[in-house]
Parts: sequence; structure tokens; C-alpha cells
Amino acid sequence: MSGNDEIRLRDLGLTAGAFAVILVEPQLGENIGMVARAMANCGVGELRLVNPRNGWPNSSAFAAASGADSILNEASVYTSTADSIADLHTVLATTARHRDMTQDVYTAADAANFLRVGASKGHKAGVMFGKESMGLKNEDVSMANGIITVPLNPVFTSLNLAQAVFVVAYEWYQAGDITPAKSLAIPKETRLANSAEMQGLFDHLEAELTTTGFLRVKEKRSIMIRNLRNLLNRARLTEQEVRTLRGVIKSLARFSDQGNN
Amino acid sequence: MSGNDEIRLRDLGLTAGAFAVILVEPQLGENIGMVARAMANCGVGELRLVNPRNGWPNSSAFAAASGADSILNEASVYTSTADSIADLHTVLATTARHRDMTQDVYTAADAANFLRVGASKGHKAGVMFGKESMGLKNEDVSMANGIITVPLNPVFTSLNLAQAVFVVAYEWYQAGDITPAKSLAIPKETRLANSAEMQGLFDHLEAELTTTGFLRVKEKRSIMIRNLRNLLNRARLTEQEVRTLRGVIKSLARFSDQGNN
Repeated sequence: MSGNDEIRLRDLGLTAGAFAVILVEPQLGENIGMVARAMANCGVGELRLVNPRNGWPNSSAFAAASGADSILNEASVYTSTADSIADLHTVLATTARHRDMTQDVYTAADAANFLRVGASKGHKAGVMFGKESMGLKNEDVSMANGIITVPLNPVFTSLNLAQAVFVVAYEWYQAGDITPAKSLAIPKETRLANSAEMQGLFDHLEAELTTTGFLRVKEKRSIMIRNLRNLLNRARLTEQEVRTLRGVIKSLARFSDQGNN
Repeated sequence: MSGNDEIRLRDLGLTAGAFAVILVEPQLGENIGMVARAMANCGVGELRLVNPRNGWPNSSAFAAASGADSILNEASVYTSTADSIADLHTVLATTARHRDMTQDVYTAADAANFLRVGASKGHKAGVMFGKESMGLKNEDVSMANGIITVPLNPVFTSLNLAQAVFVVAYEWYQAGDITPAKSLAIPKETRLANSAEMQGLFDHLEAELTTTGFLRVKEKRSIMIRNLRNLLNRARLTEQEVRTLRGVIKSLARFSDQGNN
């Protein structure tokens, strides 16, 4: 790998220590390109090709890679599966169908954790994917330490090659990702309202609704106020939204004053 | 939906109560077909199309669906996003780029849990996906209760339409799946060896290695025996493999006897 190539890989935001994607006898260049795109999506940069059917490099691959060209440029080509994995400490094989062999079977999510733990100990890993038409041969599968079978609708398990690579790489990315499960995105120019601002909104709304008579039934007043506060608190308003809502209340109240005149 | 159509959907192994996939102004029929395939992979059957650019039905879609035709046959077409979501209680919008709007943002995995919890309470849900070239319009996004942004390599977040649908549907499937993270697959005709069978193997191996002199260094003998037991136990052998290994030991020992004669 030349210095320039390393820079190109870094420019794609790829992660050092990710597993190598090993395509065994891939048939279509287009699929190899889509694999490179899926790898780039997940920060996985190292692609190994064993006997690609239509030779290498392949222009259809570049056309389908959506800019993940540096992964294709850096891809290495091997003439046997054994050669392609020689330097790896951990090898997993992807299979959709059961091979009637004794093997450790991982989900994609657990394989991701397994590979991450291994990487943290310096183990170099690779995941093998078979040809589009029939997957990996049993003799290739038996070179692996375990297999990955993605849990999918058992009636319809067939993934295309790029989708298979994507799901393994996606899980690998998630296993190292720290995005909170759910968060409130707020535009830069504002911020969450604080409780004093929310209280100002409630006071304003309740005062106007007292004036209009909406809260006139004494025994329902406190429940009504509680319900309105709950729904507004549940939405987690920004300071800007509080101002907007106070404008809305003012506008409606004024219109109603005029209407009553 | 006719009775026959319902049977076709059941034949695909689709799950009742899954979310609806809503494609807003999809451009290419081929992508709609690949979306149907991705949905079938994950047991998600309901497809809604808002103003598909090339009309509907579309033969390119069927050509790309890899057999998920019944999802395409059952797809419903709408002339506005509002119409397409009218009956839904929960709507999420997928976006790769930040819209500078205040929105709850879910990862695909958390969105899956959110949709599953809602479904268990009878909430009907849908997830909107925008057109291939530019995603959803802000006005469509603002019809949703929250957005899904898939955590991906920030330098390379662009997913094709089918990949975007796949990752949301995949997480939805995983959230309801009970596949153990890792398990040992064993062919039907055999079973895990029990400890007595393993002990028989160790005794056999250790007896032969005592004969050949491999265990002759007294202070190393117990460590060597422990290491061999550890590696064989770690592999979790089947009863058949124990017999195979005993055959291997016997064969090697006999050959060595002959060689010494």
C-alpha cells in the first residue's frame, strides 16, 4: 500500500483493525463494486478477491462503487482461498444454508462482537463470502473458525452479495458505535426550554383559557391543566418553540377578543 | 386484499403487525423491486408507494424482486404522503443528513424496538423513505413522529434505497428474533460427546503418548496432558469426532509401531 493509497483510505473514513472482506470467486464486477460501497458505509476498508470470474481490475466494479474506489484500488487478488487467509488469526464464513458440518454458528451481531474482542487483542480477522450463485464451497467453509448465518425470514433468506457484506459490516460498525439509541436533535440556533420557560408558557395558556371560560368547570380544571402540561412536556420543547406557541396563544386570544366585539 | 393474495403473503413467511414501508416518489422500478426483496428477507410485507415516477405497476420492479412478487402485487399507490400515512399511529422518516429541525432521532436498532413496543399495543406504524436522488423533503419529514438515522461511517453515509429499507427491516426482524448469539451446529446423525467419551479419548491418547515416550519428561507430563485436554475440550467435540480422533490416534500409533520394526 503506497502512502497516497493510505491517504485515500483515510479520506474514506475507514477504521484500522477492521476485518478483511474476502470474496471467493465473485462473478459480477458490479457486485464487487456494490460490496466496496457497503464496506465504505461501515468503515471497513480491506477487500480480498479470490479468483474473480471476470478478472481484475474490472470497470463494472468501479462504476457500481459510488466513490468507494480506493477500496477497489487497494483490493488484493489471490488464486486460492488458503492463500487469501494465510495471515489471518480468525476466519469466519458466511452461509445461508446449513452445511451438515459441526461448526460454531454466529449471528451477524455476535460475530461483530467476537471480531471486535479479537481485534482488541491484535487478532487479524477476515470474513469469507461465496459466489453469488451458490455461496461458499464446503471445503472453504471448513477453513473457517466458525460461520455467520444472518437471522432472516426463513422462507426468504437469499441476500445479494452486497447485502450480505453490508449486514456483517453494519453490525461490526454498530458494535463500535456510541450513537445514543434515541436523542433529540435541536437546531444550533436554539436549545431545550428550561422549566421556567415552560412554566411561563403554562401560565400564559392557563390565564388565556381562564379568560375564555375553557377552564370554567371547577372540578375539571385541574385535570385539564395537568393534561395540557403533560402533552407539552412530553414533546420536550425548545426555547424557540415556547416563544412560537406563546405567539400562537396570543394570536388566537386576540382574534377571539375581536370576534367577541 | 383478496384471499389468494393473503395466502401468497403468508407463503412468503411475512409477519403480521410489521410496519409499512412507504416509498415517497421512488424513481427506479428496479429499486422498488430490490426493496421488496429486502422486505421479504425480513418478513415485512406492506409496501406503499407515493407517486412512483415511472408509474405502477412497473415490470423492472418485478424483474429485480427475486421472487418477492406478492409484496409488489399487494403494494398500494397514493398521490400524497399525507394520504399514504392517514391510517397510521406512528410514522418515522429516514434521513441521512441533518435537517436543522427539532426531531427525535432514533438509530435503526432503537427504532425497531420502538416499533415493536408500539405494535404490541396495537399501534399501526410506517417508515418513510425518500427518493433515491435526494431523500425526503422537509415537509414529508415534518409529518413523522421522529426520524431514523442509521449510524454509519460519517464520511460515507449514502445508502441505496434497498439498503436503507433493508437495514431498518433487518433491525426490526432482529428485535423479534430469538436466535441464540452463538450456537454449535451439529449434524443430525451425531451429538455432542459426553464427558465419559472425552475421558476415553484422553486416556487413549495419553496411553499411546506414554508408549511412544512423548510424555517421558516427568515435570512436563502433567502440563502437556492439561494443554491437550484444554484444546480438545475447547473444540466441543461430537461423539463422531471422538471416534474419528481415536481412529487417527490408533492409525498413527500403528504406523509408528511398523516404522520401528
